[in-house]
Amino acid sequence: MPLQPTVEADFCFAEADPFRLDCGEEISPVRLHYAMYGTPNARRDNVVLVCHALSGSARVADWWEEMFGDGRPFDTSRLCIVCANVLGSCYGSTGPRDLDRRTGRPYGASFPVITIGDNVRAQALLMDHLGVDRLRVVIGGSIGGMQALDWAIRFPERVERCIAIGACPISAMSLALGHLQRQAILSDPAWRGGDYEPDAQPVRGLALARAIAMCTYKSPELFDKRFGRKPNRNGEEPDKRLADRFDVGGYLDYQGEIFVRRFDANSYLVISKGMDLFDLGATPEQERQNLSRITARVTLIGISSDWLFPPEQVRSLAERMKQVGVRVEYLEQHSDHGHDAFLADANDLARMLGPL
Amino acid sequence: MPLQPTVEADFCFAEADPFRLDCGEEISPVRLHYAMYGTPNARRDNVVLVCHALSGSARVADWWEEMFGDGRPFDTSRLCIVCANVLGSCYGSTGPRDLDRRTGRPYGASFPVITIGDNVRAQALLMDHLGVDRLRVVIGGSIGGMQALDWAIRFPERVERCIAIGACPISAMSLALGHLQRQAILSDPAWRGGDYEPDAQPVRGLALARAIAMCTYKSPELFDKRFGRKPNRNGEEPDKRLADRFDVGGYLDYQGEIFVRRFDANSYLVISKGMDLFDLGATPEQERQNLSRITARVTLIGISSDWLFPPEQVRSLAERMKQVGVRVEYLEQHSDHGHDAFLADANDLARMLGPL
Repeated sequence: MPLQPTVEADFCFAEADPFRLDCGEEISPVRLHYAMYGTPNARRDNVVLVCHALSGSARVADWWEEMFGDGRPFDTSRLCIVCANVLGSCYGSTGPRDLDRRTGRPYGASFPVITIGDNVRAQALLMDHLGVDRLRVVIGGSIGGMQALDWAIRFPERVERCIAIGACPISAMSLALGHLQRQAILSDPAWRGGDYEPDAQPVRGLALARAIAMCTYKSPELFDKRFGRKPNRNGEEPDKRLADRFDVGGYLDYQGEIFVRRFDANSYLVISKGMDLFDLGATPEQERQNLSRITARVTLIGISSDWLFPPEQVRSLAERMKQVGVRVEYLEQHSDHGHDAFLADANDLARMLGPL
Repeated sequence: MPLQPTVEADFCFAEADPFRLDCGEEISPVRLHYAMYGTPNARRDNVVLVCHALSGSARVADWWEEMFGDGRPFDTSRLCIVCANVLGSCYGSTGPRDLDRRTGRPYGASFPVITIGDNVRAQALLMDHLGVDRLRVVIGGSIGGMQALDWAIRFPERVERCIAIGACPISAMSLALGHLQRQAILSDPAWRGGDYEPDAQPVRGLALARAIAMCTYKSPELFDKRFGRKPNRNGEEPDKRLADRFDVGGYLDYQGEIFVRRFDANSYLVISKGMDLFDLGATPEQERQNLSRITARVTLIGISSDWLFPPEQVRSLAERMKQVGVRVEYLEQHSDHGHDAFLADANDLARMLGPL
């Protein structure tokens, strides 16, 4: 059993004054579900904010257990680890399954577009609520890394150190792959324009979206080693029958099947969209201005086999930060797990980072 | 208007004796739809067999026009260019829309698995029919290149020169991407187990399959240059509304829309599967034995930005050929069009090859 949170609770706000989102819409009320491991010290200067990735939850130790422990990044004897579930998720924070109080019906597909910045602003309100002025560290991988970067830019005075793994604004091919995933959901008639019952969600579309995503999270090298051209392990004969699969096909289908049991299709749409929208500035000059706001010490980690967030793009971001005077280091995690390495090879990552 | 064929006809065989396929099944009768440009000379030693890719047709000049002309590879004043539509296609050869005479109903999804080798054996029967013992050249890109390689191995005495562009047995990631495309079709309820009316085919699934394929055919560089992070050109605002798209999303959807008007979902399943199954031998030793059969002069062309058939894999195949004594040259087409470059940058390819 993984480490249990010392606190797991909901922080509710925007009950009277709606929370205004980057897209121009407002939501009210807002619920942020969060978990805490360890306890804040008297000065509340030992807080590490962890930001989770697309399908993660506030319960960090459930999905990043290897990062916890004595001599590891998350040493709860010294540090207080906090994580809030992102808006739009199905793991406790306000999301598409919640009632829109203007209509009395679930938001469904009318749930507004949520940006990385919206999440960071909500998390900052949570930190106010917890009495935490300044974060020892804000850390995350993938969309979590985007949030860490946004924190460092948006609230420079509140971030001592920023660690972003496999994260940078995504390029057109990654936008394309995100689009395909959302189209897989939208193309499933069971999606019903977002208006489905929780027990009748578009499982085929969501499973296919997850299968597409798994290809982008892993690497060609890993797939070659693990699956090669082997037939599916249950005895299928792909050379005999149209429906029979190679092993990699069986793996992808299985990943889809288990995912639909734990995740909601409309949540997937909202969070995936937020990933696409993350940007550091519409122009190079705006990016320079944004990056130059950063005062935190920054660690950017690229993953050698990541083709969703290629390491050269992460390295390039580190160089652009350096040019505007940010104290930034670039590290590379060597793994054939692709983008997923920050989770799949978390022991390596924990060693690279050491105690925070 | 592109060049018109001198002959466009059906070659029918296996009326009495069924054509036995690699998968163990038989089909009877078999129709190969083919097109010819130019005419065979008296000795019938001027024939170039072109093998088309997944969604191509026998009408080569419709999709590879740049290859035709004086001083170009396909000079019809000297050469006779022949191309046969692959089995399983919807462009004239026997395919899933045809009646299965055992049942009196269209094959649909019961159409058998067709390998690259099955197509090559059928094409060889066509060459017998045309009185062509030996091909001056067999050439193709992608699945067409697989057929060219199979020809050189299967019928060494019948092939003088083999040119395969962006072709080699595919690795696990490419198998995965093919699987996703087929799953997109199978997941569409309109597919109905393959039993749909021609005017009610699973357009959503097929469009999504095509959109996934387009990502694999193009390159990150091209997408960055062409689309970057621009919103869709029709004025959509992806940062405002969940359904609004980036430009690359609009492009992919459009590619899907136009594809479903011209292609059949069951044909897609069959031909895509054949691509996955192409192999040069189940073991390295079997591959060596197969490659050592080749007597043709071989040209393998890798495309610099191809991530479906990475150029290093094509180059590696050339090296393995060289090791068993094949007269092989490796060339690289420099293009940011990805796998699609043999079509999208066909003028460059024509220049690289020169007159055949």
